[in-house]
Formats: sequence, C-alpha cells, structure tokens
Amino acid sequence: MMTQPYPKTPLTEVHRLPKRAAYDRETVHAILDEALVCHIGFTTDEGQPVVLPTAFARLGETIVVHGSVISRMMKVLAGGVPLCLTVSLIDGLVLAKSAFHHSMNYRSVAVFGTATPVTDPAAKEAALRGLTEKLAPGRWDALRPVTAKEVKATTVLELPLVQVVAKTRSGPPVDDAEDLSWPIEAGVLPLRLTVGDFIPG
Amino acid sequence: MMTQPYPKTPLTEVHRLPKRAAYDRETVHAILDEALVCHIGFTTDEGQPVVLPTAFARLGETIVVHGSVISRMMKVLAGGVPLCLTVSLIDGLVLAKSAFHHSMNYRSVAVFGTATPVTDPAAKEAALRGLTEKLAPGRWDALRPVTAKEVKATTVLELPLVQVVAKTRSGPPVDDAEDLSWPIEAGVLPLRLTVGDFIPG
Repeated sequence: MMTQPYPKTPLTEVHRLPKRAAYDRETVHAILDEALVCHIGFTTDEGQPVVLPTAFARLGETIVVHGSVISRMMKVLAGGVPLCLTVSLIDGLVLAKSAFHHSMNYRSVAVFGTATPVTDPAAKEAALRGLTEKLAPGRWDALRPVTAKEVKATTVLELPLVQVVAKTRSGPPVDDAEDLSWPIEAGVLPLRLTVGDFIPG
Repeated sequence: MMTQPYPKTPLTEVHRLPKRAAYDRETVHAILDEALVCHIGFTTDEGQPVVLPTAFARLGETIVVHGSVISRMMKVLAGGVPLCLTVSLIDGLVLAKSAFHHSMNYRSVAVFGTATPVTDPAAKEAALRGLTEKLAPGRWDALRPVTAKEVKATTVLELPLVQVVAKTRSGPPVDDAEDLSWPIEAGVLPLRLTVGDFIPG
C-alpha cells in the first residue's frame, strides 16, 4: 500500500509541463528528507495569504512541524485551516543560448491538507526527536533531556502525506535548434547547500 | 525617502521575538538580492492556499517575477489577488546543549501586496533582463536577443516593496545557564549555497 504513488487530485495534478511532476513516494520522500526548511502558506481570517519558513521533519507518511505555543502561525494552523507546505531544493542554474530558455534545475514538493496538534506527550517527544535528529543525526540521546515544561511550551503539528506532488527539472538547457551555433557557452552551473566548519561556542 | 525604513503595518509587525525583525532597506535588499528563489503564496477561489517556488529579481523598489502566459499562477496573480512573497536563506544549524534551544540561523523577507502585469514591451524586456542578469551577471548582452514573440509569450508581474519585513537570526546557541556544563559540544554548523564546476552542454 505504501508503495502506491500519491493520488492525482484536482489540487495536485500538474497541467503545464506534466512530465516534471512525480507522485511516487520514493521521489517525494527523498526531497522532503533532504530539505531543511519548508514554506507553509495559510490564509488569515482577513483573506491575506501568509507564507513562513520553518523547520520540519518527515516521520513515515506524516510531516511534523513545531513552534512556541504562543506563535501565531502555530495557533492558526492548529485550528485546522487549509494549508500548503512547499519544499524546494535548487540544484543548478540552466544557462541557455537565449534568455527565454534559461531555467533552474530544482526538486520541489507541495503538500496540501490541514494540520492537527499532537497532544500526547510521548508522541510530541517523538516528533521533537525527529526534528532534532534530522538536523544533527545521533545528537538527541547525548543532549540534556527534554523536560515536561519544554514539551508543554511547544506546539507540535502533524500533516499527513495525502495530497502530495513533486516537481523536478534536471539536465542541460533545451535550446531552439536555430540557436545552437550562437557563440555563447550553454550548460548548467550546479548549486549545492554545503556545510562549513563547525563553529564551537 | 528611499533610505526610510519600510513602515511597520499590522501585516508586517513582528510580535514574537521582535528583535529578529528588521525594516531597513539595506537589510531587505541584501536578502532579496542574494536569494535565487522566492515562495509565492496565494489563495484560490476555493479558499485553498497554494505556495509555489519561482525565480525573481529586485529592480529598485519593485520585485519582478515571470512565467508562461498560460501558467495558472501567473493568471491568478495577474488578477490582483492578495499574495505573500517570502524569501529565505539558511545560514547555519544552531546546535545547543538541549533540543529546546536548537535553532537555525537564517535571513528571510516577507513581502505582502498585489502584483500587476507589466504590459509595456520595453518594461517587460527590462524585467527579463533583470531576471537573467541576476542568475548570470553580464550574460544578457551576449545571448541570442529576445524576440517579440517570446516577450508576448511571457507574463511579467511586478510587486512593489511597500509592506515588507525581514527576519533574521545569527550567532551561537543560547543555552540555559544550568546546561552550560552538559558534556556535548554546542555551536553553529554553517551552511552555504555553493557553486560547482560549470557543466557545458
């Protein structure tokens, strides 16, 4: 069952450039697991869209996010409003012979749904562990243990992976045939998030 | 006038951790100019938030984005719906002595407003030039020149920088005093988007 792709729905079906869309769990999970930050969009009572970046982790077929219990976004999302959680990884700049065919190589995922507060303290702690271990694998067990007060001061929300679509572009530029001899080099400038030397303190 | 900070409004005022907010143009412009991708949030007629990543460029006090004239997002945004355009740069993982004080160093900007189509062909071409030059400075003049047909097939939208706020975190973890002797190294793991070797083709 878990190896079935995510279903195409009116929200997740990609009409333009459908070849860039993917619904298989392996592709979606790999993007979600590599990305450190997602952008969550929701609409305020006044009809204003708000998009905020936040850390997240995937635990199986669920995404978890966390924040202070007094955070506005956490309060709004906990109310069960529709949201869109989007993740993007930039892999390269696609430099073509013409401006028109310039592009980016990327891998992105959009998840639509509503979030639910995780209230059970053990489940909350498991989510916090997942969020910490994503950033620093193996670190959780060596940390000063989390306290009941800290768990209580933190809102954890879960979002099921149900309405999900990945979009990706990779490979070289696709130039018009008549431009191929234009005297400028075309190709891809790869981009990658790299880790520097640890700064103690 | 241009050196005045962006005004605090009900949408842009940060209530939690207000010390992380900035409204000065220098900070906002630097983040917008470094980021390659923004995430645009808008709400569909059915009340569903949608967040999509896209390239963008800042031209003075205006942000420009572009897309195919048949792109759904371009059509919806061109209709003047409220939007939120958010940009984030991840600078580092903040590894503390306790999970609770783990964090990320980041620089982000949120812009609220409505977009307007740029219809004048010369203004459209200037925007496309800005978008291309951001990715590859100096490249525009060497490219096969853009055609009238290409300009016509492209929607360019502009969003004025009026309701704008930056949020940033930098520096080491802030641990509880009683945790400072806990036997695990704390500090910052810097992250940076780096450019690899050009892949011709």
